[in-house]
Amino acid sequence: MNISPRVDSLTTFHVMEILARARELEAEGRDIIHMEIGEPDFGTPSAITLAALEVLKTDPIKYTPASGLPELKTAISEFYQQRYEVSVDTKRIFITPGASGGFLLSLGLLVTAEAEVLLADPGYPCYPNFVRLFGGKPQQIPVDESSGFHIQPNHVDQFWTTQTQGLIFASPSNPTGMVMKPLEMEALILAVMKREGFIISDEIYHGLSYGVSTRTALEFSQEVFVVNSFSKYFGMTGWRLGWVIVPEAYVEMSERLAQNIFISAPTLSQKAALAAFSGSNIDELEQRRRAFEERRDFLVGGLKTLGFKLSCQPEGAFYVYADCSDLTDSSQALASELLERAGVAVTPGIDFGESHVERYLRFCYTAPIERISEGLQRIERYLRLAT
Amino acid sequence: MNISPRVDSLTTFHVMEILARARELEAEGRDIIHMEIGEPDFGTPSAITLAALEVLKTDPIKYTPASGLPELKTAISEFYQQRYEVSVDTKRIFITPGASGGFLLSLGLLVTAEAEVLLADPGYPCYPNFVRLFGGKPQQIPVDESSGFHIQPNHVDQFWTTQTQGLIFASPSNPTGMVMKPLEMEALILAVMKREGFIISDEIYHGLSYGVSTRTALEFSQEVFVVNSFSKYFGMTGWRLGWVIVPEAYVEMSERLAQNIFISAPTLSQKAALAAFSGSNIDELEQRRRAFEERRDFLVGGLKTLGFKLSCQPEGAFYVYADCSDLTDSSQALASELLERAGVAVTPGIDFGESHVERYLRFCYTAPIERISEGLQRIERYLRLAT
Repeated sequence: MNISPRVDSLTTFHVMEILARARELEAEGRDIIHMEIGEPDFGTPSAITLAALEVLKTDPIKYTPASGLPELKTAISEFYQQRYEVSVDTKRIFITPGASGGFLLSLGLLVTAEAEVLLADPGYPCYPNFVRLFGGKPQQIPVDESSGFHIQPNHVDQFWTTQTQGLIFASPSNPTGMVMKPLEMEALILAVMKREGFIISDEIYHGLSYGVSTRTALEFSQEVFVVNSFSKYFGMTGWRLGWVIVPEAYVEMSERLAQNIFISAPTLSQKAALAAFSGSNIDELEQRRRAFEERRDFLVGGLKTLGFKLSCQPEGAFYVYADCSDLTDSSQALASELLERAGVAVTPGIDFGESHVERYLRFCYTAPIERISEGLQRIERYLRLAT
Repeated sequence: MNISPRVDSLTTFHVMEILARARELEAEGRDIIHMEIGEPDFGTPSAITLAALEVLKTDPIKYTPASGLPELKTAISEFYQQRYEVSVDTKRIFITPGASGGFLLSLGLLVTAEAEVLLADPGYPCYPNFVRLFGGKPQQIPVDESSGFHIQPNHVDQFWTTQTQGLIFASPSNPTGMVMKPLEMEALILAVMKREGFIISDEIYHGLSYGVSTRTALEFSQEVFVVNSFSKYFGMTGWRLGWVIVPEAYVEMSERLAQNIFISAPTLSQKAALAAFSGSNIDELEQRRRAFEERRDFLVGGLKTLGFKLSCQPEGAFYVYADCSDLTDSSQALASELLERAGVAVTPGIDFGESHVERYLRFCYTAPIERISEGLQRIERYLRLAT
């Protein structure tokens, strides 16, 4: 076999086994509450579906330019102006096949062989794997409730070596749902800039925050890479459409790389996404956001009652990263038990890093509140019988 | 700046400049004959558009499994059985965002830092760039009319070093349109297998051949990687959908890598592609194939009359790689002149490698025959006035 050693080091996702086992149980007739999958249950907003139907009737669906449909890049630029009061030249915007494409493009550009890249642990499990794919070394920084699960400037000072090239961070974060405060974000960016490292700000959960606003890294610097997506806030998961905003100096190389590795992002998705920014669609998305907020409140309250510890309030995305150390020594064993015995699928901390992962379970509130309620009741029954 | 040296070595495509200049001229009111772009003019077949319309009306368009929609993998497996009499287990099939995704997946898996990968020169310009992206070194083998522009077993013997890891080949080939004979393909595969190298067979132009059949590398070995796509024969360019068939031993690692770098391929594209294999759609595609054949005959005849040399008959894809050395010392200068003075856009050989590229122009027959005819007349006038 000819497997690159880089790829051999990629980690697998336990959530995939959980999901596969859940499907098996369902095939046997069991009812399973799904709180393991980070995909909103709402589906594509109607305005976007209608736009796609119109496009399909007349359009031959050909390639777009490698960096994306000019009208969509203009719409995204206007969105940054309206929502963040940040001016982004359209030539810095690259439309990608999902945020996955944004990470391929930005990390493909940036990561040098053997270079270290700083990441939060716990964090999105694909970050370290993207870094490994391009020959780099993920340097995972253990973070916990004391910093809202975010990397702080002092972490940068502590973990930066002569091999370090840059940092990836996310706010709101997967798996913690935590939102970084603006001053924290600014200080983090400055700490990396001071060392001339690159910064990738993963903003794919932007728009999904509750009681706080999400701020783009572009408010603090034009020299950051910002990855975003139509999947989460805009409800377009299966359309595989995202974007990355690159610093001016990287535009030409990004163009070159995008031409080679994508040709272009899916055309119908790009044309349909033009409808994502309309006032009436944003109204629908805001209704969804309020529904997520209600679910968040309900789930957080319920988990605390059951004995999970949550010393930080998750303020964004659709995740609760709950400390179950008063209930078990092994979150992985508990996740398995909850699935098998209570019919509730959740993701164990081990999927998100190495730091105290046995203490945590990630719950997604991507299911209707009635199902979340049923899930909590099942967990309550399980815990009562197990103790 | 933090640009990886790998990316700094990526080549640009001159065809992009040609296209941009053609668009400028069109904006000034000039009529341009486009024979530079490798995208069929036919657009999406109606059966596929209709299927997509039906899906859109009821489907929320969510993620599919990372390796693709099971029904589509089954349809592809059946297609291999029917068309090639080759049995392919569905678990070896990975649905990707275009063939680009297939190259990302297979080369991401296979290429080790500093490893050499054998390629034909001239060839598809993204191959060497994909190899560079993963830290490998493209080893471009000069090929010419004497081997039908294909790599031969003796080339493998000549160019294989201790650093060589494998080979990528394409039949039908871009830019030459040449189809490899079955015995040649078998011998080439054996020559690489003997050295335990990997083989990637790019079959994205399969189905588009004229007077000869296209044979899959899977007829000769189950240990090859086969990349294919819905873009060319199936007419689905902008849908960004392809597939790669991996050897059994690579299934688990492919799954792991696909989860990380794609999440999944576009869902609507996958569901629409289920209609691609219906009898009535194949009938429509075969009509298109006959139209391409007619164009090929017309273009080849016309170019020969104008003084281009074509000692091999291009039998597939929609490309003619024409030797213009009796007309100019520089195909790049001629391409520029043809655009500026004759209003005909073609691609100079330099986009496809380094070997005798000044002798060749690539003509695409992705335009209606009336436009090809007009293009030939314009070139004739230009040549008459220039000499």
